[in-house]
Amino acid sequence: MLNTAASATLDGRPVAPSHGRLRPVGIQDVRISGGFWGRMQELNADVIIDHAERWMEQVGWIGNFDAARAGRLPADRRGREFSDSDVYKLMEAMAWEIGRTGDADLERRFAALTDRIAPVQEPDGYLNTMFGRPGQQPRYSDFEWGHELYCFGHLVQAAVARARTHGRDTFVDVAVRAADHVCDVFGPGGKEAVGGHPEIETALAELGRLTGEQRYLDQAALFLERRGHGLLGEIELGQDYFQDDVPVRDAEVLRGHAVRALYLSAGAVDVATERHDRELLGAVERQFARTVASRTYLTGGMGSRHEGEAFGLDHELPSDRAYSETCAGVGALQVAQRLLLGTGSPTHADLIERVLYNVVAASPAQDGKAFFYSNTLHQREPGTTPAQDSPSPRAASSLRAPWFAVSCCPTNVARTLASLGAYVATVDDGGLQLHQHVASRIETTVPDVGTVGIEVSTRYPEDGTVGVTITETPDDPWTLSLRVPAWAHSATVRRGASVTEAGPGYVELEGPWHRGDTVELELPVRARWTWPSPAVDALRGQVAVERGPIVHCLESVDLVPADLGTDVDTVEVVTDEEPVEQDGEVLVPVRVSGTAAEPEGRPWPYQDHRPATEPRSDTRLAPLVPYHAWANRGPSTMRVWMPVAD
Amino acid sequence: MLNTAASATLDGRPVAPSHGRLRPVGIQDVRISGGFWGRMQELNADVIIDHAERWMEQVGWIGNFDAARAGRLPADRRGREFSDSDVYKLMEAMAWEIGRTGDADLERRFAALTDRIAPVQEPDGYLNTMFGRPGQQPRYSDFEWGHELYCFGHLVQAAVARARTHGRDTFVDVAVRAADHVCDVFGPGGKEAVGGHPEIETALAELGRLTGEQRYLDQAALFLERRGHGLLGEIELGQDYFQDDVPVRDAEVLRGHAVRALYLSAGAVDVATERHDRELLGAVERQFARTVASRTYLTGGMGSRHEGEAFGLDHELPSDRAYSETCAGVGALQVAQRLLLGTGSPTHADLIERVLYNVVAASPAQDGKAFFYSNTLHQREPGTTPAQDSPSPRAASSLRAPWFAVSCCPTNVARTLASLGAYVATVDDGGLQLHQHVASRIETTVPDVGTVGIEVSTRYPEDGTVGVTITETPDDPWTLSLRVPAWAHSATVRRGASVTEAGPGYVELEGPWHRGDTVELELPVRARWTWPSPAVDALRGQVAVERGPIVHCLESVDLVPADLGTDVDTVEVVTDEEPVEQDGEVLVPVRVSGTAAEPEGRPWPYQDHRPATEPRSDTRLAPLVPYHAWANRGPSTMRVWMPVAD
Repeated sequence: MLNTAASATLDGRPVAPSHGRLRPVGIQDVRISGGFWGRMQELNADVIIDHAERWMEQVGWIGNFDAARAGRLPADRRGREFSDSDVYKLMEAMAWEIGRTGDADLERRFAALTDRIAPVQEPDGYLNTMFGRPGQQPRYSDFEWGHELYCFGHLVQAAVARARTHGRDTFVDVAVRAADHVCDVFGPGGKEAVGGHPEIETALAELGRLTGEQRYLDQAALFLERRGHGLLGEIELGQDYFQDDVPVRDAEVLRGHAVRALYLSAGAVDVATERHDRELLGAVERQFARTVASRTYLTGGMGSRHEGEAFGLDHELPSDRAYSETCAGVGALQVAQRLLLGTGSPTHADLIERVLYNVVAASPAQDGKAFFYSNTLHQREPGTTPAQDSPSPRAASSLRAPWFAVSCCPTNVARTLASLGAYVATVDDGGLQLHQHVASRIETTVPDVGTVGIEVSTRYPEDGTVGVTITETPDDPWTLSLRVPAWAHSATVRRGASVTEAGPGYVELEGPWHRGDTVELELPVRARWTWPSPAVDALRGQVAVERGPIVHCLESVDLVPADLGTDVDTVEVVTDEEPVEQDGEVLVPVRVSGTAAEPEGRPWPYQDHRPATEPRSDTRLAPLVPYHAWANRGPSTMRVWMPVAD
Repeated sequence: MLNTAASATLDGRPVAPSHGRLRPVGIQDVRISGGFWGRMQELNADVIIDHAERWMEQVGWIGNFDAARAGRLPADRRGREFSDSDVYKLMEAMAWEIGRTGDADLERRFAALTDRIAPVQEPDGYLNTMFGRPGQQPRYSDFEWGHELYCFGHLVQAAVARARTHGRDTFVDVAVRAADHVCDVFGPGGKEAVGGHPEIETALAELGRLTGEQRYLDQAALFLERRGHGLLGEIELGQDYFQDDVPVRDAEVLRGHAVRALYLSAGAVDVATERHDRELLGAVERQFARTVASRTYLTGGMGSRHEGEAFGLDHELPSDRAYSETCAGVGALQVAQRLLLGTGSPTHADLIERVLYNVVAASPAQDGKAFFYSNTLHQREPGTTPAQDSPSPRAASSLRAPWFAVSCCPTNVARTLASLGAYVATVDDGGLQLHQHVASRIETTVPDVGTVGIEVSTRYPEDGTVGVTITETPDDPWTLSLRVPAWAHSATVRRGASVTEAGPGYVELEGPWHRGDTVELELPVRARWTWPSPAVDALRGQVAVERGPIVHCLESVDLVPADLGTDVDTVEVVTDEEPVEQDGEVLVPVRVSGTAAEPEGRPWPYQDHRPATEPRSDTRLAPLVPYHAWANRGPSTMRVWMPVAD
């Protein structure tokens, strides 16, 4: 069943299109060796994966499979209708992690989970703890909310990860049987249906790539083309909630539930790529570009509405009601990575960097034991500490929670961190492209050239120096491309005695190369003011601070030592000078606003004259923290966008 | 059962507290004789009530009662679980309207509805088409969402209207039996429960006032005191959704579902008043004051979140996602009227005026055949025309819809318009207070003084002249009080040869009076800029225009003739001069913004320099329309708050 060229499948690549401008490298080819993402990968390996597994045992989501085997369903079923999917996402994280480190304990746990899941699969390949048993709803009786195809999608993605890091095993066989079942039931002449939550599309496409089976790709294409024709029932949130309002190829922008929209887009790129469907690919590219241009937060977060966990309209980007679900960040990474591979445009690598640092990294607490589900950009009230012994409501955004009733985000973070190497670099016929400046050792094959190796030494984004040493090279020349992010405007490249300046995009350094050759890229990492488009009503009169790719924020716990009150909503920043960097901290001049604090007892918040503005304090320097690090020091209020003093 | 003093009950008063700073007058005492509200009452009588009745026949909500009688439930049941309540709200509107005009056709239709509903009542007084029959959920099995007590509340309110305008009849008897049933089931020693949607509290309190039966008031108090102790189950929206998070007397501000919070507050004022519970009354007053000061839109609308149809946090008032449900406007009127009666504070009459002109009047289309459910303050995309032959989703806010799947708003508008006279004036021991400057004839009894009559002649708010002629007066002196709204700062009062200036509040004109005496109040009704508190992040850098009590807005259909583009989001207003009034229109200087319109294809909406501002057009005058009149000329975009040119 699997592609017989076993070596081709054991490449550790999360996404492996058959063609495209760039080719992905696998997680075995990119060894992250330290720095920001090295620490995050360690946190994932040491804490997050264990944490997720323990919680899913505790709340019974893994136990659902045991209950199924023992005939104790539906009585003993726990969790929401899609809880199986989180077990699969955990297993995907484990699979990448085993592939990355060979962790024997994790391998044992992966096998143990497989032993509990495999027996639940029915003879025809169906596998779900929620449907089909006496006392449960029948299979496929609720396409809007049942999530059966969504669960299959995550099963298949986990199996692809397993196959590409370990090879075929029982778990992979289970997923292949499930995929065959899906094709049997929903193929041509079968049930004319789509799932309420896209995910099966990109999963089946990747399984097709893995196995070489056209059937899976065709089924992915069929699901994709069926969508947008109203096969799903009408719901109060509207058909755009699950992107069943308009066919994918006719849509103009992402809309509705953000995670659904992004997973669907990822599947659409996969299908379009494999079918050489330029119309479809172009449609997704345009939709995504408009979404990034007008429906995306400074953090790279997507989803402006809590209602329906959804995209807002163009330029509807309220900081305080930012939903910016962690999973939408993961979805955006998936779409951007696929478009990067297809087009080679640095825009997509820029977005990946932004989302990684400011959404994915923002979700876990510093200790890895609590997570943000939604990622607000403005916390108006200090949060209360979420329950530590039971799941929290999903959109509890004031402080990170250990687990959620809907807990898609922690496992999504875990699988992304474990497979992060795949986002760092790509190859093409002419050489190697370094997209993310991550301390790492990369060794991979450049087609028609041979094995190339580099070592990336950097403390980026703490500072802007990225050193690259050639560790392996054929004699034939090849090109090393280094990304200069759009925010940099200009970067310095040192290669031997040559010093050149480069603008955003890729600096292309041509070979021949020799082992030990070095290149240094100097990016202008320093704190800077960032201004919003005036089209974003919610941000008028406000400014943010970024440093390199890192969005910063003002947290109320940092106002108190500066004697600036206790609430970020009562201060304004003075932008006459650049933000200050001092002892590794970013500081901005801040004063208590003479207007933001309303007089006590003012009965009506509107008046017939412009409010007078008299600062109520001296201007003092207040430290900002990286957005991803906020809410690690107890309840506080927080703003990314700060009012500007007149 | 009813208070034996029949004349005391036939007074047409929607709310009749036993004591308070002011005493209400009934709808028979205040005859609105023309002008803005005269036209609205005519529209209600001629169109809105008929429209609501026809739609509820068409969608089967009235037919549910027939189906119940014929034993065809649950098979033939139509509509949501609370659809009975809309039939009762329609009947309440009919009752007030019959009381106001004596309309014989309406009287016949009211009786016909009674004949269809009364037989559905069960021997123990229970009455609901949704619960309790074979195949239906059992009675009182879903307090969170079942709405049984909510439906009873509307039944009782309709019956109070009927009793106070017609006297006891079969319909009133039905409601009294239902109220007795509620007291039997939920009284001391009975079911320890509250309903998910408050409404029964204020209804039972008023029935207690009507009948003199202490039991109803005690039951209202019991429901009120039970709330906030977690008797309702946990829901994903959180316990604040139905105000079960904190006891009413301990809360600090209104929160959660806005209509629920406001109906509950109205009931709390009723209970606090009748029980002389100053602590409770003070708590509601403080909560409402803070809500008005920090959680209320310029229109008087309440509810900043579509999710949960809920209040936001303090100063969370996004224009584009304003929910501002029409029913929340009605709820705000109910609370403000009760607090006005209790305290005599003009603040409450100011809010009533604001909500009437800018929420209640904004809901119906000019032809009375379509309604806004939510009332946005910023329409970003031109709406599409809602379905004309089937109910629309409830929050369809782009254009008014003929009917909704949840259609609480049209009937709430209808009952409010029919009983509007009661908001116009009050009496106290010393005289008569004119709160709303509505063309009307008022004749009522001032306690200890006698019958007084006035005729109010005015085109207000078209202009600011309010003429009052004494039409009936005893010899004893009494005081005529005229409200000067807070926006007026100062008004001129002419009484005979005397001309005085008065500030906001009540101008108190002491008698003795003689028939034919005249007073003229001159309010400075002219278009003015209104500025937001800087604490409202969503409004920074924006300005609105009000004229008298009327909020205005810019609608895109008015940009085109001025050659200013087709989208309100691309223009800014110049505020150097006052807004212009010309031929009855309000106009403001507007130019195409040099910044708001993004260059085509700009890939990212944030940048590291302040956006340059160069206007892209001359400054031209563009007309504004009253907010209540927008969206009557086809799809358009709209803003209440407009960006200010630098």
